[in-house]
Amino acid sequence: MKNLPTYDLASLAELLQVELQGDPAIRISGLATLAKAGQEDLSFYHNPLYFQNLQVSKAAAVIISSVEADKFAGNKLLTDDPYLCYAKASHYFKKHRDTGTGIAPTAKVHSSAKLGKDVSIGHGTLIEQDVTLADGVSIGANCCIGQGTIIGEGSQIDNLVTIAHEVSIGKRATIYAGVVIGSDGFGFARAKGVYHKIAQLGSVNIGDDVEIGANTCIDRGALDDTVIGNGVKIDNQVQIAHNVQVGDNTVICGCSAVAGSATIGRNCVIAGGVGIINHVEIVDNVTVTAMSLVNQSIRKAGSYSSGTGLSETHEWKKNIVRFRQLDSMTKTLKKYFSK
Amino acid sequence: MKNLPTYDLASLAELLQVELQGDPAIRISGLATLAKAGQEDLSFYHNPLYFQNLQVSKAAAVIISSVEADKFAGNKLLTDDPYLCYAKASHYFKKHRDTGTGIAPTAKVHSSAKLGKDVSIGHGTLIEQDVTLADGVSIGANCCIGQGTIIGEGSQIDNLVTIAHEVSIGKRATIYAGVVIGSDGFGFARAKGVYHKIAQLGSVNIGDDVEIGANTCIDRGALDDTVIGNGVKIDNQVQIAHNVQVGDNTVICGCSAVAGSATIGRNCVIAGGVGIINHVEIVDNVTVTAMSLVNQSIRKAGSYSSGTGLSETHEWKKNIVRFRQLDSMTKTLKKYFSK
Amino acid sequence: MKNLPTYDLASLAELLQVELQGDPAIRISGLATLAKAGQEDLSFYHNPLYFQNLQVSKAAAVIISSVEADKFAGNKLLTDDPYLCYAKASHYFKKHRDTGTGIAPTAKVHSSAKLGKDVSIGHGTLIEQDVTLADGVSIGANCCIGQGTIIGEGSQIDNLVTIAHEVSIGKRATIYAGVVIGSDGFGFARAKGVYHKIAQLGSVNIGDDVEIGANTCIDRGALDDTVIGNGVKIDNQVQIAHNVQVGDNTVICGCSAVAGSATIGRNCVIAGGVGIINHVEIVDNVTVTAMSLVNQSIRKAGSYSSGTGLSETHEWKKNIVRFRQLDSMTKTLKKYFSK
Repeated sequence: MKNLPTYDLASLAELLQVELQGDPAIRISGLATLAKAGQEDLSFYHNPLYFQNLQVSKAAAVIISSVEADKFAGNKLLTDDPYLCYAKASHYFKKHRDTGTGIAPTAKVHSSAKLGKDVSIGHGTLIEQDVTLADGVSIGANCCIGQGTIIGEGSQIDNLVTIAHEVSIGKRATIYAGVVIGSDGFGFARAKGVYHKIAQLGSVNIGDDVEIGANTCIDRGALDDTVIGNGVKIDNQVQIAHNVQVGDNTVICGCSAVAGSATIGRNCVIAGGVGIINHVEIVDNVTVTAMSLVNQSIRKAGSYSSGTGLSETHEWKKNIVRFRQLDSMTKTLKKYFSK
Repeated sequence: MKNLPTYDLASLAELLQVELQGDPAIRISGLATLAKAGQEDLSFYHNPLYFQNLQVSKAAAVIISSVEADKFAGNKLLTDDPYLCYAKASHYFKKHRDTGTGIAPTAKVHSSAKLGKDVSIGHGTLIEQDVTLADGVSIGANCCIGQGTIIGEGSQIDNLVTIAHEVSIGKRATIYAGVVIGSDGFGFARAKGVYHKIAQLGSVNIGDDVEIGANTCIDRGALDDTVIGNGVKIDNQVQIAHNVQVGDNTVICGCSAVAGSATIGRNCVIAGGVGIINHVEIVDNVTVTAMSLVNQSIRKAGSYSSGTGLSETHEWKKNIVRFRQLDSMTKTLKKYFSK
Repeated sequence: MKNLPTYDLASLAELLQVELQGDPAIRISGLATLAKAGQEDLSFYHNPLYFQNLQVSKAAAVIISSVEADKFAGNKLLTDDPYLCYAKASHYFKKHRDTGTGIAPTAKVHSSAKLGKDVSIGHGTLIEQDVTLADGVSIGANCCIGQGTIIGEGSQIDNLVTIAHEVSIGKRATIYAGVVIGSDGFGFARAKGVYHKIAQLGSVNIGDDVEIGANTCIDRGALDDTVIGNGVKIDNQVQIAHNVQVGDNTVICGCSAVAGSATIGRNCVIAGGVGIINHVEIVDNVTVTAMSLVNQSIRKAGSYSSGTGLSETHEWKKNIVRFRQLDSMTKTLKKYFSK
């Protein structure tokens, strides 16, 4: 059994500030999908695809839209936005973990570091000179936080994270294991076939409420800083090169790569595996679908794609031969159909 | 000189349980390709491409198929499956490394952790509360193993690995450096342009005999678990998102990414750089070729591909212009060739 | 204020060995783009795109080509190659960091390790048996350097780097955080649906003056070594599989993946997100553009590409349907236009 907290439904309704219909005393000890919810689980309905599941769900109670309330006969929590309400509810069902507080005796914290109230630093972690950790910052085990870096109030840094020198991170960041922030940008001058390194003198500037997924890298700028706006959410194994700028509340999904000096606007959704070449500019409110290559600037909001779609390999092999003949074929045809 | 073990050919034949033809006393101190093998090396022949190399190989002995035995005049080990026999033989030529055993004095192991027999834990590693390490588990240096995680018998965890709380890993796993297992899935509810984090309450459940390559990430589930079947082999820098399910004996090659709630069947081969979008289902025995995007479910076993194939850039630039005109061109043509 | 060093322009001209025109005594305390440079900043002009910026730049002095010297009226440093001169100048403006020298007391260095002069080893780092670190090698915090590995003179290894056993790294390498070198290649023999691991008996051999970006992986060879030539520059999150060979002075940009036994020549430029399949050979002086798949050998120097280019998603959806009809459409047309 998991040591999850339990609630009566009335308490949850109050915590979530939503209307309750049904038994206020029913006991809720977990959160589950409609299909898997048991007699002590809260569930949620937000997508007509799951209407069948709703009909037969054994959930103790369901979060549901006020306008669809009559679709479920059992106990319910009524809200304008069931998915948002589920997101909020989820945090009440996180198992409590005793991860320790304070500074682990095996951490090495430079005497010049400035630590706020309720800062915790994990086993084996190195905090270099002049680092500033604001109130409530938590750093996991075996991390390195470089000289002069500043981390804002309430930010949570997981285990094995590397943050280089003079990086600035805002409030309430969540940074997962294996992340590397502030490593040198990939900049060289080529002369006579040999590459000469350009010192990367800029840094990385990250706003508030940013999430950065496991093993993601964000390089420091060459002269100016690499900039990540407020509310930006970055998934695992994303690569952000030097001097990239990402606007507020933009989402970048797993394994995408943004090359040097590219600019991404606000409220964009960059799906997984997308590549964005260097110096490209993308305006606000752009969606790029999975594994597309953005090889030119996007000046107009909307959705953009590249690729061929999936085929059976034996069909695909025939079509890619034709792809390579497209231009010559079109020219041949134009001879016949000239206007 | 490397301190490799040496064998006479008869001993190797016995260890590998195969038939020997030739000199049983010949000394074998290494394993090499046909082209590079010297007078004390064992080699193997499994592919007609290397027939020339076989003819002139200086190998002390060659692993060869019984039905092709007459193709090589020298000493040989006869087997049904030379490549499998080479795989088995390779383990007898691993150099012995004194990596130490037992618990390094600089490791921090919580008093509530349950350790089996012959467990080794490397320098600087953190083992949190209620972790269970079965007999013969080996954990490298500077790792973090989170609260309540269970690791099965004989599993080998390399250096700098992060495994979060309450993850379950089966027997005989091999997990390489930089891997992150059980980091939060990438889940948010968007409301008024702002993303609200959804607590990731599920975990990761990994079967027996799984290999996970360096810097790969496997996220924990949102409500249910992310599940990796028995015998699954995952290469480096692969991204497995929350609630993905991977069937037994499936292979996923380097830099592939599987988005949330995708399901991959058994005995599949996902080549390198493949993207699989969220909620897609792939049946058993499917091959996806390199860098393909699986943007729809695959209901039938077989091989699938996307992309255009490679061209010289100046030709490619002309053809991609035509690709963008394909639909309008086809419509124009249909006016002329209407059935 | 940053504690950057300051120079008078005459000193910089001497350090960079270039001709000065203007005020030799002017004080230079930073390096900036033409647009952002202030009254104490040095800047550089190398691209006609920035001619407007040059005209209005407030820079104290500008690095400029001798043949274009008359385009800027202010103080200047004259050179044949302004971008190269900027690269060299950049190193004079790196802020001094007190990262400490010598062996951190929390590092664990095996007594058999051979350390040259001026070697520094960071907090928590593990140096195994028989490691050789030449003069001036610097290893960051929480790294692991495996048994028998050799690192050449002046090489700089960042924090949280994992280098496995018996790897060889040349002089003046720069290796960033999260890198994993010498992890096992992904090699199995399949028999009756089950994968049998092949021990990876080779190693990794890295030349001089190599840069390896954050979270990149380079696997050890199966029998022979994986080989990275002199002057090779590898960006972040690149995957180099077992037995790959990369020729001198080749550049591999972020998130590219090179599959097993592929060979890349000298002076190549592999852009970001490129995939190169196994056993492919690429000659010298080849450029592969971003996110291309190299699924066949490249025998001739030049630039190569794949993909479709970017479209608006609603247009793209129509065109990918036609892509899948290309072969049949072409055959239909050929019936009408047969030669």
